[in-house]
Amino acid sequence: MLVLITYDVNVTKAGGGARLRKVAKTCENYGIRVQNSVFECNVDASQAALLKASLLDIMDKDLDSIRFYYLGNNYKNKIEHYGIHSNFDMKETIIL
Amino acid sequence: MLVLITYDVNVTKAGGGARLRKVAKTCENYGIRVQNSVFECNVDASQAALLKASLLDIMDKDLDSIRFYYLGNNYKNKIEHYGIHSNFDMKETIIL
Repeated sequence: MLVLITYDVNVTKAGGGARLRKVAKTCENYGIRVQNSVFECNVDASQAALLKASLLDIMDKDLDSIRFYYLGNNYKNKIEHYGIHSNFDMKETIIL
Repeated sequence: MLVLITYDVNVTKAGGGARLRKVAKTCENYGIRVQNSVFECNVDASQAALLKASLLDIMDKDLDSIRFYYLGNNYKNKIEHYGIHSNFDMKETIIL
């Protein structure tokens, strides 16, 4: 299933930069970065739970924000991308 | 239906700041900001088309990135939020 993860990490206070890098690195282990603070992770339920646990362990709930969108297995026609892109999977997304 | 919009606007070149403000302002007319560059818009198909057209008109496709996720009408159990939040609709999201 596709799990979309979006995050805002507060980098204005000490430790924010390190958390931001850890969040990104953790997401990179499970999926692809589609925008600066947006990852798409094609994972099973077990992997999704592990990923979530890792991110919740890294984040500071008083300073940061993380959102999970569970898009299921039939997500390919639900996503549209416009403009520049970097390393996301061309097969998974309608490019316009 | 819920349309999730995520964007990266390149603000390192002239005009980027203005585009960023226009993108955010346009999204605000249709939905709620849930993170810095993430909006959730509960719209019908006609509104979704208008919103998309407006954003595509604003963005610079050579510099910016906008993604649309069409989450349909049964989205409430597909979204989880952790950490800080600002002005998003408490009724629409599982708060954990």
